[in-house]
Amino acid sequence: MPGVITLLTDFGSQDAYVAAMKGVVLSIASSATLVDITHSIPPQDIYAAAFTLGASHAFFPRRTIHIVVVDPGVGTQRRALLLQTPDALFLAPDNGVLTYVVEAFRDAHPNTAPTGHLSTPPPLVSVPVPASLRAYALANKALFRPQISQTFHGRDIFAPVAAHLSMGVPPEEVGPLLGEITVFALPHLQHGQDRSLIGTIIHVDNFGNLITNLKTEVLPKGDLEVIVGGSVIRGLRTSYGGGGELLAIVGGSGYLEIAAENGSAAQLLRIGRWSPVQVRPI
Amino acid sequence: MPGVITLLTDFGSQDAYVAAMKGVVLSIASSATLVDITHSIPPQDIYAAAFTLGASHAFFPRRTIHIVVVDPGVGTQRRALLLQTPDALFLAPDNGVLTYVVEAFRDAHPNTAPTGHLSTPPPLVSVPVPASLRAYALANKALFRPQISQTFHGRDIFAPVAAHLSMGVPPEEVGPLLGEITVFALPHLQHGQDRSLIGTIIHVDNFGNLITNLKTEVLPKGDLEVIVGGSVIRGLRTSYGGGGELLAIVGGSGYLEIAAENGSAAQLLRIGRWSPVQVRPI
Amino acid sequence: MPGVITLLTDFGSQDAYVAAMKGVVLSIASSATLVDITHSIPPQDIYAAAFTLGASHAFFPRRTIHIVVVDPGVGTQRRALLLQTPDALFLAPDNGVLTYVVEAFRDAHPNTAPTGHLSTPPPLVSVPVPASLRAYALANKALFRPQISQTFHGRDIFAPVAAHLSMGVPPEEVGPLLGEITVFALPHLQHGQDRSLIGTIIHVDNFGNLITNLKTEVLPKGDLEVIVGGSVIRGLRTSYGGGGELLAIVGGSGYLEIAAENGSAAQLLRIGRWSPVQVRPI
Repeated sequence: MPGVITLLTDFGSQDAYVAAMKGVVLSIASSATLVDITHSIPPQDIYAAAFTLGASHAFFPRRTIHIVVVDPGVGTQRRALLLQTPDALFLAPDNGVLTYVVEAFRDAHPNTAPTGHLSTPPPLVSVPVPASLRAYALANKALFRPQISQTFHGRDIFAPVAAHLSMGVPPEEVGPLLGEITVFALPHLQHGQDRSLIGTIIHVDNFGNLITNLKTEVLPKGDLEVIVGGSVIRGLRTSYGGGGELLAIVGGSGYLEIAAENGSAAQLLRIGRWSPVQVRPI
Repeated sequence: MPGVITLLTDFGSQDAYVAAMKGVVLSIASSATLVDITHSIPPQDIYAAAFTLGASHAFFPRRTIHIVVVDPGVGTQRRALLLQTPDALFLAPDNGVLTYVVEAFRDAHPNTAPTGHLSTPPPLVSVPVPASLRAYALANKALFRPQISQTFHGRDIFAPVAAHLSMGVPPEEVGPLLGEITVFALPHLQHGQDRSLIGTIIHVDNFGNLITNLKTEVLPKGDLEVIVGGSVIRGLRTSYGGGGELLAIVGGSGYLEIAAENGSAAQLLRIGRWSPVQVRPI
Repeated sequence: MPGVITLLTDFGSQDAYVAAMKGVVLSIASSATLVDITHSIPPQDIYAAAFTLGASHAFFPRRTIHIVVVDPGVGTQRRALLLQTPDALFLAPDNGVLTYVVEAFRDAHPNTAPTGHLSTPPPLVSVPVPASLRAYALANKALFRPQISQTFHGRDIFAPVAAHLSMGVPPEEVGPLLGEITVFALPHLQHGQDRSLIGTIIHVDNFGNLITNLKTEVLPKGDLEVIVGGSVIRGLRTSYGGGGELLAIVGGSGYLEIAAENGSAAQLLRIGRWSPVQVRPI
C-alpha cells in the first residue's frame, strides 16, 4: 500500500544523514518507493528549497508524501507540520519551504507582498491556510521515533511520520489542525510604463540559468525584449543553442528564464536571486 | 510488470529536473524500479554520456529501459528515438549517445572511422541500423505528456514513453522505423612499427584514470610497455596500489587504463580525451 | 523476498561504477530495494567509511544487507568478508571499515587501543570475532560473477553475493568461518585531572562539524566547558542557531560535536580528525 515518499533536504549526499532517514522510513513502510528530489539545497536556504519543491511536486503520483527538511530552526520552538492538499501530503518545518505549494491554492492574495522586484529575500509572513487545504501540527509522539534528538528531526520525526502516513494513518492523527501557515511574500508583478512588466529572479539553477517569476501567460504577446542586469535581449528563443551568448527562453516550468548558451547567465551578468527583470513589447 | 528504468543525464543532482522525470515515470508505472546511472555528465558532453552508458548497460537485467538525456539539440529538429536491442530498450536523442551500444552490433565497420588517435572529438556520422536492432522515431504523441515544453523533453517525452513501454506498450507503437542512426566514428586501432599498437584515450573518469580504447584481447602477449603523454610505463599491474606513481592496468570494463596511485593520471600527465596511447611488446 | 541492500563506496556518483553494481544486484534479485548510503567517501578513506556506516546501519530494517566498497587493497591478497550480526549482514573488504559495527559487540575491549587522543590515524589490528557475530571469508565462486576483474570486486564479488544472500542463500555458504577480523583501534577515553575527560575528533562531516568520540552518557553532569583547538566553549547548546560563532552540541548520533553557526568548525579552528577535545565540569 505505501506509495511514493520523496525527500528534499540540504544534508548533502556525503554523510549518513539521508540514509538514516531512509532506513527509518523502510523500517516502518518496507515497500515505500523512495525518491530523492535533491539533497543539495544550499545549507538552510528555504527559498531554494521552496522553489525546487514547487518545480517538482506536481509531477508525482497523487497521494505522494513529500518530506522537506531544510530547517535552520531545528531544536528551537519552530513548528513542524503536515500540509494536506487534494493531491499530496507535505511534511516540513513551518518556515516557508511550502510557499509555492500554498500559493497555488490562494486565489485572493492578501496584499502582503511587495510589488516589483526586491533586493533582499522576501520576508516571512503568516497567512490563513487556504480553504481547500488542511494543515496539522506534528504533535502525536506515538508516530515519532522513541528518542527525539535535538538536531535531527528529519530522522526522528519527519521520516517516521511520513512512513506511518504511507501505511494508512489518517492525517488528522498527527496532531491539531492549524489555522495559519508560514510563507514568504512572493513578489507581485509590477506593470511599468509602455506596457512593460517588471518581475524578479526567484531562482538560479545548477547551470546558472536565471529563473524569473514571469509565467508564459503574463508575457506580452508578439515581439518583446528583456532587460536584465544591464543587458537587452531581443525575442524569445525555443532552444538553448543557436548562437548569441545570452538568451531568453520559457523554461520547463513555464517561467521566463535568462540563460547563457555555453555557460552561466548568473556569472555572465553577475546578478542573482531577487534582481529585477523587465519585459516589454517591441 | 514494469521492470528497471535507468536515467542518465547531465542535469546535475541539485535541481528539480531529475525528480520531475521520476515523478512522471511513477505516475504511469507506479512499480517501476528507477536506477540513476549518473546525472553528473559534463553539460552536453555526448562522448562522456556514451561511454558511461556503454560501461553500465550490459550489467542490467534483460528488458531494462535506459533513458539518456544529454541533449544539446533539445528544441531543435533533432530526432528522438527508441533503440531496441535483443537485451534492452534505449530512449535518447539521435545525437551519438548510443554509439557504444550500436557499435557492439556492427560486425563489419564501414570505413568511416579515422585510424589511430585523434586530437579532436570524433565526428558524428549516420550509419545503417544494424540488422539485429530496431530503431524507431519517437512520434506517437499519445505516449507523451499532454503539454510538451521546448526545453525539457526528458520530462515530457522520454520519461512518459519509457513508462508506457515498461507497462507493455510495444516498441513499434512509438513511431516509424528508422533506417539510420547517428554515431560518432570511434577511432580504429592503428598498428605501428615493431608490433606496436596505437590507441586513443576515450574517457577520463572521476578519479582521473585515463581509459583507452585498447581492450585486453588486442594487447600484445607477454611483457609490454605503454607510452603515453611523454611517459613510459613498464608492464601491467593487477592493482591500483603497490608503488610507482603512474601505472597501467586493465580496468573493470576490460580496457587498458592509465592510473596514478595516489591521484589523477590526467593531472599528472596533463593529457585527456583523444590523446594517443602506444603499447609495444618488450 | 529480497529486502533492503545498501551501498557505501568511494566511487563518486559521476561514473558508471555504482550503476554497474546495481545492475548486477537487480539481475539476481529483481525486487531488492537498493539504498545508497553514500558514494562520496573520500577515496580510500576507510575511517570515513567506517564512521558513516556506523552512523546509519542501525536505522535500517532487520536483515538489511550492507555492501561497503572502500577498498584500497583491491587486487591484492586482502580478504573479503561477510559479517553477520543479529540485525544485519555486512559485505566488505577486511580492512577496518566494519570497525564501529564490530565494536558495538565487543564488551571487553582488549587493551589494544591507545588512550586519549591521537595525532595520526589509529592503527589496524586483528581482533577475535565477538561471540554474538559470525564472519565468513568470501570464497564460494558460484556466488560471484563468472569473470572476476582485478579492480572491480564491488561489481564482480560483493554485489552478486549480496543479491544471492537477499534471495535466501544462507550466510555459511559464502565461505569458511573466520576467527579474526580487522578493526582500527578506536581511541579510549582518557580521564584528566579535575574530572576532565579527553576525547578525540573521529569524523568531520560535510558541514565541517567536528564529531568527537564522547557520547552523551560519558559527559560530566551539570555545567561544562569544551576545550578544542585552542578555543573554550561554555555549555552545550540545543540547536545549531542562536548566536555565538562556535558551539558544542550533542548531535543526532549521540556524540558531542563542535559546530560553527554559519560555517565550518573545521575551517574556523583549522583542526580535523584525530585532534584532541577536552571536556570539564565548571
